[in-house]
Amino acid sequence: MAQLIREVFVAAFDTESLRAGDDFARLSVPPGRLVMTTDGYVITPRVFPGGDIGSMAVHGTVNDVAMSGARVLYLTAGFIIEEGLPLADLAAVADSMARAAREAGVAIVTGDTKVVERGGCDGLFITTAGVGVLTDDRLDIAGNRARPGDAVLLNGTIGDHGVAVMSRREGLSFETPILSDSAALNGLVADMVAAVPEIRVLRDPTRGGVAATLNEIADRSGVGVLVREAAVPVRPAVRGACELLGLDPLTVANEGKLIAICPADRAEPLLAVMRAHPLGRDAAVIGEVLDDPDHVVQLETALGGRRVIDWLAGEQLPRIC
Amino acid sequence: MAQLIREVFVAAFDTESLRAGDDFARLSVPPGRLVMTTDGYVITPRVFPGGDIGSMAVHGTVNDVAMSGARVLYLTAGFIIEEGLPLADLAAVADSMARAAREAGVAIVTGDTKVVERGGCDGLFITTAGVGVLTDDRLDIAGNRARPGDAVLLNGTIGDHGVAVMSRREGLSFETPILSDSAALNGLVADMVAAVPEIRVLRDPTRGGVAATLNEIADRSGVGVLVREAAVPVRPAVRGACELLGLDPLTVANEGKLIAICPADRAEPLLAVMRAHPLGRDAAVIGEVLDDPDHVVQLETALGGRRVIDWLAGEQLPRIC
Repeated sequence: MAQLIREVFVAAFDTESLRAGDDFARLSVPPGRLVMTTDGYVITPRVFPGGDIGSMAVHGTVNDVAMSGARVLYLTAGFIIEEGLPLADLAAVADSMARAAREAGVAIVTGDTKVVERGGCDGLFITTAGVGVLTDDRLDIAGNRARPGDAVLLNGTIGDHGVAVMSRREGLSFETPILSDSAALNGLVADMVAAVPEIRVLRDPTRGGVAATLNEIADRSGVGVLVREAAVPVRPAVRGACELLGLDPLTVANEGKLIAICPADRAEPLLAVMRAHPLGRDAAVIGEVLDDPDHVVQLETALGGRRVIDWLAGEQLPRIC
Repeated sequence: MAQLIREVFVAAFDTESLRAGDDFARLSVPPGRLVMTTDGYVITPRVFPGGDIGSMAVHGTVNDVAMSGARVLYLTAGFIIEEGLPLADLAAVADSMARAAREAGVAIVTGDTKVVERGGCDGLFITTAGVGVLTDDRLDIAGNRARPGDAVLLNGTIGDHGVAVMSRREGLSFETPILSDSAALNGLVADMVAAVPEIRVLRDPTRGGVAATLNEIADRSGVGVLVREAAVPVRPAVRGACELLGLDPLTVANEGKLIAICPADRAEPLLAVMRAHPLGRDAAVIGEVLDDPDHVVQLETALGGRRVIDWLAGEQLPRIC
């Protein structure tokens, strides 16, 4: 069984190091600072409108590396598989991962599979790790670098992933089908850092959505953030679904979105380069960084009022990213 | 909960990149070929004589990188945790990982935790990925490089890990306590490749034991292997337990052992440097590589007869490595 599974992945990923059959991959990297990341994927359902656990396991980890500004190079993939999972399901996931990796221009260079007894695991868990390299010494992108006066940008509509997954899970369907935005952002980030190396923060608002991500940045950087509700792109169908489900789009997970923070005078060129990329067509400046000793994230509503955007208490959206 | 867990790990692993709280770690690496690996750990029971899932998750991945001859630098750690797992259990695992990493001289630089519903996962799964660098251009160590006439070496006694885990699982106890041999082999490997850069194959005989590992090497390299039973170190207590349990020590998993294959004329210096290291005190030349179109692994028994050492049919030892 483990042998069979290994063969499924080796055939799908088709990289030289996997075919070599050693427990390691030997790789060349350009000189620079190495960037590493890892993420586990436990999503249910495994297949959802616009993606599956396989494409997410590639996109999510590619994005985590990309949020450093690094060029993403290689992924590893560890699979924990419940005995009895249909091999066809697994092959579909492998194909989806391979396609996502090819599209992102990264190679899955080594992997591992473990099979656990029935009931030992909820079908399939995937843990990917990613490696990239920072070749541009000017880049210093991290969650603690936001400064009062900086501009806050977003590359497109929010809430699509969370609503797509949740509607599949709840058996809901909408007139306009809502698809996950799951996508690899490394190409977009490459354009952004080449044009505006002064970018201070990049972060993908996955679990907890834009609300959690901005609160984290505010906390780490010791600043406040003001978001203008009218400037935040939300698809009408997603807005409608959120109303139906009682969700705030700001707290819903995304898988193909990023928040970028840069000095105010670099916002225009950054916005221009984002809009020129297919994954940034709907990019917008959504707010600004404030000097605030309480590190609060505020929303200026369409009517001009202000309310605090809080951390999500508890887990609104378990296992969707 | 996820926050709490993250704090447990950040405190235990105590690395700058984890404290920074970004989803990535930025690291410096010396120039050379990069080596990457990943492995999932799903062992039951989680704690066994001589180790636990945490120490194994460090040792196993450190060893996979080390088997390339590379200097092991960094690990990532992804945790999938069943809701309701006592936090004290998790903290103990984190401490054990931190200790193992410190002893191996590697840093756990980034991680991820996912909590799944009760029944979604068998308590705790860990997937680690490792990165190292090959700074010595002379090294070319891989499973397909064994050549007829080469010597086959082993760094010590076999079967300790598998028997320790299995006896805990079955509730057996022996007069002489049997401890897992789980250990990080990167220090030993560093000495070995410095002294004998001509080493052709390094492989840790984990799942399936020495039998599976030698069969894999024979298959990949297109050679046969002859093992001399009398030369293979096995502790008397392990031999006794194997007889009791109906196991062949050659097929039992190890976590602190390695097979090394080198040109025959380099076997003596290699053996000397292995024996000089605490993890190679019982090192031995256990056999040689043969020209064999059928790629068979044979055992020359103490009485002088020969039998084939086969791949293990099925899964003799599930989830012990």
